[in-house]
Amino acid sequence: MTTLQFYFDFISPYAYLASERIEALALRNQCQVVWRPILLSALLTHNQQRGPAEIPDKRRYTFKNLLRLCHDEKLPLQPPPDHPFNSLLPLRVSCLRPQAGLIQHLFRACWKDGRPIDSSDALKDLIDEDTLKQATSPEAKQMLKDNTQQALDAGVFGVPTVVVGGEVFWGFDSFPHLERYLQGQDPVDSSLVERWDRLPASASRL
Amino acid sequence: MTTLQFYFDFISPYAYLASERIEALALRNQCQVVWRPILLSALLTHNQQRGPAEIPDKRRYTFKNLLRLCHDEKLPLQPPPDHPFNSLLPLRVSCLRPQAGLIQHLFRACWKDGRPIDSSDALKDLIDEDTLKQATSPEAKQMLKDNTQQALDAGVFGVPTVVVGGEVFWGFDSFPHLERYLQGQDPVDSSLVERWDRLPASASRL
Repeated sequence: MTTLQFYFDFISPYAYLASERIEALALRNQCQVVWRPILLSALLTHNQQRGPAEIPDKRRYTFKNLLRLCHDEKLPLQPPPDHPFNSLLPLRVSCLRPQAGLIQHLFRACWKDGRPIDSSDALKDLIDEDTLKQATSPEAKQMLKDNTQQALDAGVFGVPTVVVGGEVFWGFDSFPHLERYLQGQDPVDSSLVERWDRLPASASRL
Repeated sequence: MTTLQFYFDFISPYAYLASERIEALALRNQCQVVWRPILLSALLTHNQQRGPAEIPDKRRYTFKNLLRLCHDEKLPLQPPPDHPFNSLLPLRVSCLRPQAGLIQHLFRACWKDGRPIDSSDALKDLIDEDTLKQATSPEAKQMLKDNTQQALDAGVFGVPTVVVGGEVFWGFDSFPHLERYLQGQDPVDSSLVERWDRLPASASRL
């Protein structure tokens, strides 16, 4: 059975959208989802990139875009009380318990109910005490670091991202392309991609 | 008649896609297009941001995504011989002659025919000699600077971007949202946007 590696971080509302749709997409295409919590800020730092939330005009635009998408998807949206917030704890919880139900529960707490999920106190009504405690262990921290490194090694540069058979699909809006790929109909001409890879740069800003 | 400010840079293949579709969209919605050449690299520098072409994994992904979109839109795609390239000259030409026909001609030379458009030599078969000469004048340089500053002032952070009535629509994939907006049916709840604007950050990476 084909495996979809679903890379996410709770900080991303687009990852929330994707988390609501990925299981159904997998089912339609006889695939299974492996839920991969990763730290978006580590990807951004690695690429020396700012996230949308860190550029004022982009931050505002991204939220409006999100409202439009949630309307189209008939998904409720209520932002958490702070953003950006520290997503390390729920991510580490998800490393310990990488199950669709639990992860979707956390996404909905944050983006549908607009609750904080960034502290033990915030999470104590959502996650059992043992898991919460384990999530602060060195092992859990290492699991998240390893996941994030694997994402980087796989060519992931943002969230949400699905990787299948080495092919990267970035963003909730890539789902139709992903589905077409799974049906064997991805129209990418690999010879053109190779040519693009080899194109020299005749101008460089950096 | 409603005016769509269409901000573009030839360096962006997504702007090529958008340039092929924007006039028809305007026509369908009884709008007119004002073509606004701007320098993408100036936006990136202003926001301390890297463009997709400047992050290896993202560069490759972006091109594949582009191939998928061009396939869906039945638009031919052949990249120019170098990328990134210096788009100042064709942008300054476009400031002098901001006409759909000429600008589309330049986009197609670059992204459909895969020709260079970054030098007088490259452009001499596409643009008349007087315009090419004028494009190197201080006035033309200033026009491009002014356009780019106006884009920044309008909240533009990337290309292609359409601004209409102060509302920003970024990316070729925003065109359906733009059209819905023009039909008076944008589902954005402004009270939620205001709340988002005021959300405090409880974590900061930078």
